[in-house]
Amino acid sequence: MNVGLLGGTGDIGRGLALRLAATRHTVVIGSRDPGRGREAADEVTDAAGAEVTGAANTEVARNADTVVICVPYKHAAETVEEVASALREETSVLTPVVPMERDSYFRYTPPEEGSAAREIRGVAPDPNPVAGAFHNVSSARLTDRDDDLGMDILVFGEEEAKQDATELVASIEGLRAVDAGGLGVAPMVESITPLLINVGAHNKIDHPGLRFV
Amino acid sequence: MNVGLLGGTGDIGRGLALRLAATRHTVVIGSRDPGRGREAADEVTDAAGAEVTGAANTEVARNADTVVICVPYKHAAETVEEVASALREETSVLTPVVPMERDSYFRYTPPEEGSAAREIRGVAPDPNPVAGAFHNVSSARLTDRDDDLGMDILVFGEEEAKQDATELVASIEGLRAVDAGGLGVAPMVESITPLLINVGAHNKIDHPGLRFV
Repeated sequence: MNVGLLGGTGDIGRGLALRLAATRHTVVIGSRDPGRGREAADEVTDAAGAEVTGAANTEVARNADTVVICVPYKHAAETVEEVASALREETSVLTPVVPMERDSYFRYTPPEEGSAAREIRGVAPDPNPVAGAFHNVSSARLTDRDDDLGMDILVFGEEEAKQDATELVASIEGLRAVDAGGLGVAPMVESITPLLINVGAHNKIDHPGLRFV
Repeated sequence: MNVGLLGGTGDIGRGLALRLAATRHTVVIGSRDPGRGREAADEVTDAAGAEVTGAANTEVARNADTVVICVPYKHAAETVEEVASALREETSVLTPVVPMERDSYFRYTPPEEGSAAREIRGVAPDPNPVAGAFHNVSSARLTDRDDDLGMDILVFGEEEAKQDATELVASIEGLRAVDAGGLGVAPMVESITPLLINVGAHNKIDHPGLRFV
């Protein structure tokens, strides 16, 4: 499928682009500034040895079968709103974003909708299915090509988007997609991200991921 | 250490008793009805091939270095209140309890204190340190002696109780203790239990546990 990485010039976007470039999927890195998207795409193409292209977020959205929101949580809703009118009806919207704050530790701080995924559901066009994925893998591990990953990725959400998320996850070597349920489970999945950061800080585990055993 | 399993005649109590009986620790199964505590202890002793004793919850609390709350969440606070005056000041209080509800899926439903662990902290005597552990292992796997476990147990809470929790977890073969932080992280750990039940239901994984990789 055609995968559009909205705001994909940062760490998580580059990490996903690098891994997905090695699959059968077509990867496009989006940015508000199309030049920055193309620049990131060129760098990922060099690193991956497989072509990734770049474009403006709205153009990426227009051509995508699936878009992945690759900006931090605080910019996620506005990024979806900006591309909403460009999305085709059947395009899935995938969210890996997590609202969190740091005191002496990281904690999950869901918005009034109950989760980031519900908030995204509220701003995405009604016909576009929304799912969550890639919350529980760090961009540092995705961008390290020597890392075999060997971890599970929780996916959840509306059925058609969840199927696309599952297909994307399963296409990346070393990742297994694990079905966590519908959109309602979002708080339980999103809150694992700050937990993982805390676990990494308190134990000798670099950028921990999960495996269900 | 002397480990008192408060209300330990149910599945989680028997599972922990079976595993801890094989360690250097002394295990006592508590019940409101001392006869039921002794009966469960005799059954675990037969299964474990190592002696476990039973007694009334208050007597268990009086002798314990660490008590583990083995009743369901809805009875947890009252169980701690019932034994509060019997606890020695240095005895750690460990909570594996999780408030959750089932709609079409299981979801985490924290009390107004923010977590079960904070609620337990509120009812336990001030000098007794409180920690969380054993939320993310199913009693079915603890009671199946052929199960090698091979999973991680998140521990968190007040320092001295967390040390006791870590020691208990690490003493059980096949379990690794992973430090999640202080009492404030409780919602992120407790909410993993309903997630695991949902993951088990949606995927072909029986009673999944976690491994940080």
